[in-house]
Amino acid sequence: MTTSGPIAILAGAGQLPIQLVDHLKQKGQDYRVLAFRGFAAPELRLRADATVGLLDLKTIMATLDTWQPSAVALVGAVQRPGFSALLGAYSLLRNMQEVKDVISRGDDQVLRGAVMLIEERGHRVVGVQDLAPELIAPPTLRGRLEPNAEDRAAIVFGLSLLESLSDFDIGQAAVVAKRHVLAIEGPEGTDRMLRRVRGLRRSMFGFGRRKEGGVLIKAAKKGQDLRVDMPAVGPRSVVEAARAGLSGIAIGAGSTLVLNEEETLRTADRLGLFFTAVELP
Amino acid sequence: MTTSGPIAILAGAGQLPIQLVDHLKQKGQDYRVLAFRGFAAPELRLRADATVGLLDLKTIMATLDTWQPSAVALVGAVQRPGFSALLGAYSLLRNMQEVKDVISRGDDQVLRGAVMLIEERGHRVVGVQDLAPELIAPPTLRGRLEPNAEDRAAIVFGLSLLESLSDFDIGQAAVVAKRHVLAIEGPEGTDRMLRRVRGLRRSMFGFGRRKEGGVLIKAAKKGQDLRVDMPAVGPRSVVEAARAGLSGIAIGAGSTLVLNEEETLRTADRLGLFFTAVELP
Repeated sequence: MTTSGPIAILAGAGQLPIQLVDHLKQKGQDYRVLAFRGFAAPELRLRADATVGLLDLKTIMATLDTWQPSAVALVGAVQRPGFSALLGAYSLLRNMQEVKDVISRGDDQVLRGAVMLIEERGHRVVGVQDLAPELIAPPTLRGRLEPNAEDRAAIVFGLSLLESLSDFDIGQAAVVAKRHVLAIEGPEGTDRMLRRVRGLRRSMFGFGRRKEGGVLIKAAKKGQDLRVDMPAVGPRSVVEAARAGLSGIAIGAGSTLVLNEEETLRTADRLGLFFTAVELP
Repeated sequence: MTTSGPIAILAGAGQLPIQLVDHLKQKGQDYRVLAFRGFAAPELRLRADATVGLLDLKTIMATLDTWQPSAVALVGAVQRPGFSALLGAYSLLRNMQEVKDVISRGDDQVLRGAVMLIEERGHRVVGVQDLAPELIAPPTLRGRLEPNAEDRAAIVFGLSLLESLSDFDIGQAAVVAKRHVLAIEGPEGTDRMLRRVRGLRRSMFGFGRRKEGGVLIKAAKKGQDLRVDMPAVGPRSVVEAARAGLSGIAIGAGSTLVLNEEETLRTADRLGLFFTAVELP
């Protein structure tokens, strides 16, 4: 490991890797991009220095050894591969029983396993918050609209729900209307959860006549490794939240990424949703 | 209230009201059926003494007053109506603020509100377990196959998850693979949650090549009023669990209804799933 080498971006899906690369470029920082095939956006792949399969750990490690990066960041979504595929990939490098234990422990643990492997090779793993703290929601972040008393009660209830779920390695997000939980996010992600709420309301509650209310609450799990798995929201989540009839979005300050902050807030204002960061207890 | 009157069945959707009526008939008990329009199955509506809209509380109460039942049972699923519809219906009978409070507290509370109203009119509300205890899963209930060590770990993990969720009036069921939570049931119900897991696995994990494992865990919430909202499983849940690639189903003994027990167990055996009741701590 050198301290003068480039920053290595291991890039998965979504807008975040693109925004991070833009950010580093703007600041004149030296970086290299290793894009995950099948995940990284086309726009990013065009700007990548190399492309690799998610499970091709040999090539990933060899590339990092060549680049001698000062820091490594795993950025952007990758879908959890099947157990057997993960098992095969990890077993190249580690004791089989340990690999099985890591994999069976949930998503977080799989990512932590990847971080562990990279660190063992002598690299320093950092998060987006280290490279571009401007992308993290400050406690003061909010749109034009404010949550009302009912929304605030839903936020408190939802944060408490997410905290209870922390031990189970699930639940970065939930939708709560008053004190009624409409959905808890599973591995499907926030946007698909919001579409579920939309369908639920349409089929169960005769939704469509008016805004039903409810809040999307999103915050990091207790003990979550924010270097590799920080919750994120962006304009698309705002649109999906509006379609689900929600009245607004609350995100954990200091531990949630906002993709394209300006557009996110503008979209919330335009669609009549409040958008607010909240300080976690 | 008389102690000699018929048992009044207020019947929602699904097989349970039909099975209960069959059961009462077999035992030679006197009963009357009030079917909820738009919910009760056609087969049951043909056998109903009267049909009524779910929110037509005046007619419901008048019917009960006429029948003078020895006990009232609310059986079968009804979907939660929109807030405003509920508000209108309940406000006929109670103080508006109290109604708002009850409604905002979640599904359980709405059902408890209905029970309260019926009890206030002097009727005795009972559950399926009082009228037909044979329909409740005994601790000894199991199919031909046994959960393996991994499944047993998932069951313990899932029960602990459901217990943590009890305070939030959600989560009668979850799907857990090893110690990875794939889904928590929201108001959409068990079968739709299982279809979600199936879709998740197909899109995320390349499901389809082999059985991925995982367990459906279903148990009553702590403090749940089992008279009106007892968790239920039946053959259809077994089929959906198999389609989602699960290895089996575990239900809380003493607090879960098994619809058509024989067919449920036979279906599990046939599709290669374990099916077991578990004693709750």
